[in-house]
Amino acid sequence: MSDSIDILIKYFSDLPALGPRSARRAVLHLLKKKEGLMIPLKNTLTDVIENTTVCPICGNIDTSSPCHICADTSRRTDLICIVSDISDVWALERCQIFNGKYHVLGGVLSPLDGIGPDELNISTLLDRINNGKISEIILALPATVDGQTTAHYLSDILSEKGATITYLSHGIPMGGELDYLDDGTIGAAFKSRRGV
Amino acid sequence: MSDSIDILIKYFSDLPALGPRSARRAVLHLLKKKEGLMIPLKNTLTDVIENTTVCPICGNIDTSSPCHICADTSRRTDLICIVSDISDVWALERCQIFNGKYHVLGGVLSPLDGIGPDELNISTLLDRINNGKISEIILALPATVDGQTTAHYLSDILSEKGATITYLSHGIPMGGELDYLDDGTIGAAFKSRRGV
Repeated sequence: MSDSIDILIKYFSDLPALGPRSARRAVLHLLKKKEGLMIPLKNTLTDVIENTTVCPICGNIDTSSPCHICADTSRRTDLICIVSDISDVWALERCQIFNGKYHVLGGVLSPLDGIGPDELNISTLLDRINNGKISEIILALPATVDGQTTAHYLSDILSEKGATITYLSHGIPMGGELDYLDDGTIGAAFKSRRGV
Repeated sequence: MSDSIDILIKYFSDLPALGPRSARRAVLHLLKKKEGLMIPLKNTLTDVIENTTVCPICGNIDTSSPCHICADTSRRTDLICIVSDISDVWALERCQIFNGKYHVLGGVLSPLDGIGPDELNISTLLDRINNGKISEIILALPATVDGQTTAHYLSDILSEKGATITYLSHGIPMGGELDYLDDGTIGAAFKSRRGV
């Protein structure tokens, strides 16, 4: 195996979903499909490298600046959905359930990891809320301890801005069986039970 | 998500170890580590695309032609290890157990998939054996039905070439517990048992 093939395997194994063995399999697959896969992959990678930037408004990464969501005039500008990561924007967009704008914090508050409010994309959020007419702020943050701490912190500092602040509801996931769920989830679903 | 990011995710999900979800995670990881990972990955990919070729002697893929194993004068030229795939060359090289040359068939005989002797890299193998002084031919083929059929076929056509023909031994893998192994493996290990 040559040096550059070795380095390529090393880079692939740095990706989150791949270990050394699957990185070798992936690279060998590319080597065997040079014309059909490796060259198109390289070209697309070049394209993405040259054209993607972080959106100065919401923190999303896109090939246009501002990103296509911020630039979309058909979306409501008075709804802001606050998420921790770009992957959350992608997940919500796949659901096609939200027609407002996003704001990507770039993480959640985590004192143990040294992540305080200054490390997150909060000052631009305050600018957006101060300068725009926002009717609802949706806190779509992870249902983890750090995520919920961040949601509390944000609802505190945003409570005086005049917008309704909402959370995503917690409960039984679709298809979930009670027997397999943790006590916290069952408790949350029970407490927020609704009339038929 | 922009079109080119979408296409990049599509290409990543075409890799053997990745599904749509892990492809998205991988691409997002690259987008976040543009300088540290995405650009070096693209450069190495370009390097590999421009410099790798199939070795005309053994069928390995390498950045030099002939490949660095065929070109290595410190390796024995009278030993040929026949393997089905390039990944087998990589696996054997990691073991540092073999100091001869390889020959990559590019698959195994599989009548159901329409793979006969003409589809495999066999004519160059016969040329190598006819033109060189080969003392041992090692058939390091998969222990599957198709792999063993291929091994039998090759040992038939190679039996008159004057070289010793050997197989890899079958048996209990290191760390393997009898209880978890299939009957075929236990049977093979029992039949080829050796004195202490």
